Amino acid sequence: MSSDFLGADQRAQAVVALGGGHGLHASLSALRHLVDDLTVDELTAIVTVADNGGSSGRLRGEFGVLPPGDLRMALAALCGDDAWGDTWARVLQHRFAGDGEMRGHVVGNLLIVGLWELLGDHVDALDWVGRLLGAKGRVLPMAMEPMDITADVRGLDAAHPDALTSVRGQVEVATTDGVIAGIALEPADPEVSPAVTDAIAAADWAVLGPGSWFTSVLPHLLVPRLRAALVETDARLVVVLNLEEQAGETHGFGPADHLAVLAEHAPDLAVHVVLADRGSVGSPAELAELEETVAALGARLVVDDVAADDGSPRHDADKLAAAYARIFAAG
Amino acid sequence: MSSDFLGADQRAQAVVALGGGHGLHASLSALRHLVDDLTVDELTAIVTVADNGGSSGRLRGEFGVLPPGDLRMALAALCGDDAWGDTWARVLQHRFAGDGEMRGHVVGNLLIVGLWELLGDHVDALDWVGRLLGAKGRVLPMAMEPMDITADVRGLDAAHPDALTSVRGQVEVATTDGVIAGIALEPADPEVSPAVTDAIAAADWAVLGPGSWFTSVLPHLLVPRLRAALVETDARLVVVLNLEEQAGETHGFGPADHLAVLAEHAPDLAVHVVLADRGSVGSPAELAELEETVAALGARLVVDDVAADDGSPRHDADKLAAAYARIFAAG
Repeated sequence: MSSDFLGADQRAQAVVALGGGHGLHASLSALRHLVDDLTVDELTAIVTVADNGGSSGRLRGEFGVLPPGDLRMALAALCGDDAWGDTWARVLQHRFAGDGEMRGHVVGNLLIVGLWELLGDHVDALDWVGRLLGAKGRVLPMAMEPMDITADVRGLDAAHPDALTSVRGQVEVATTDGVIAGIALEPADPEVSPAVTDAIAAADWAVLGPGSWFTSVLPHLLVPRLRAALVETDARLVVVLNLEEQAGETHGFGPADHLAVLAEHAPDLAVHVVLADRGSVGSPAELAELEETVAALGARLVVDDVAADDGSPRHDADKLAAAYARIFAAG
Repeated sequence: MSSDFLGADQRAQAVVALGGGHGLHASLSALRHLVDDLTVDELTAIVTVADNGGSSGRLRGEFGVLPPGDLRMALAALCGDDAWGDTWARVLQHRFAGDGEMRGHVVGNLLIVGLWELLGDHVDALDWVGRLLGAKGRVLPMAMEPMDITADVRGLDAAHPDALTSVRGQVEVATTDGVIAGIALEPADPEVSPAVTDAIAAADWAVLGPGSWFTSVLPHLLVPRLRAALVETDARLVVVLNLEEQAGETHGFGPADHLAVLAEHAPDLAVHVVLADRGSVGSPAELAELEETVAALGARLVVDDVAADDGSPRHDADKLAAAYARIFAAG
């Protein structure tokens, strides 16, 4: 990473990053570098809380708390680059093997739930977890109560291929064999922490995606108070497209389709920049379609090299950081 | 705490503290102050690993690891005094309520077992836990394998009041209704980390006790390689007596009796200083008996004010720190 992203005449940026899972982890890993670089001076992750599977699902069921898994991944992404921070990140992400009751639980999830039980307040406790780990930014839940995702899915009924079936639960939606027509959240209008709406109001940039489109990215736009904050803020919105379609929830979706469902779910949201990977935009015809869709949203398309070099469909943290820095500098 | 314990002509001391549970926690809380004060520059806790109950017992059973509970309490005692360290200590010690599989587990135990699983080596992982928490000293297990305490107990058989019954397990021994005649460990000659024997060899002082006499203090003396290290070292040994007898394992034991069973279990061990609380030494006749027992061991008796002011049978960390500092200064 070069350390001269920030020109002499440019002030540091306040950034909120919205998403969940591996996508938000990639975005935060990149943004963390910009914190180290002083390009970003306030970094806040706003994280989906609809997971119903695995360790998170068990803890949510046992303690009636928010599912901690996506929050934990965000915290791990914000741990420092030195041996201390890197070890904390690995510890947070460690999943117990063993052969008994702990099997499958994740250390960081238990740490977060422990702090919740100890301190009571979800947001206060997450701030404390961040402090204890030396996290380079703040991690907040998108809502103050556990959420459930429900999807209308087409193609699950062989006799009626156009019929819509309701599928409930993040795990179930993310792995459906059908085509998702749309999603909804329960409860429909959850409480949102003032810390979340304040961070969005104060931000220079809001970054949405990459990640599981229906289960990690779009849910934020379905929380009315969160969407209102995103509509009202002066922050410019960057939408980061995935590198490829995702088996299950976005099978058959190209880049333009991702933007189309986003616009469908939040028609009043102004998008300023769409960031796509150069190697993932497809044929010239597909790129032209994407350009058209982005232009129709009133946004600017940035095509940059942000994919990992190992051929995996993941973003490279350093490349993504450089792309963000260029976008923030261009304004 | 005054900060002038260390005279200009006096070098900082290397200290090993041996024990387990609340007693070792009290001793380490005191010694931690002496680290802050620069009176002590190397502090190593050598901790019993024979617990078979509660969260530790469950984790030991599930993962085949050392029981982490006493190690975790030692780490909590070594966390710093500031808000960060104090919060870490509280988090480590937090026991899950809830109503399911996590109930009764302790956050710090899970963190330690997570590091063990992640890094493999018990000692290396404990060093990492200490680093992650900013602990003011090193925490080592007294043996490299889980231990079981077996006691010969008198008085459990009403028909034969003098008969000895074998009682197995730390929990069972600590809560026996009979009178403990002696204890043994299984395995009888466990592996001991070189880090433990090296720390004992390099120490200026070894502190044994306070704590549950048969289940937290004496076990160290029954590990042959550990006892050999204590016999061979040039470190001076301080034995810290409990403030009162303990229901169950030391019912009816006065201070002199504690020393007598210690001498019985490790006759070749040289004791240099015995520290007793002024309010706990009993009648003049009992004090005279204690003086006689200490003299017979070839040790010096120090009677000091080290009890908590709240009337609990606990040592006060500040008072105990001051007493240790005086003992270390006297040599």
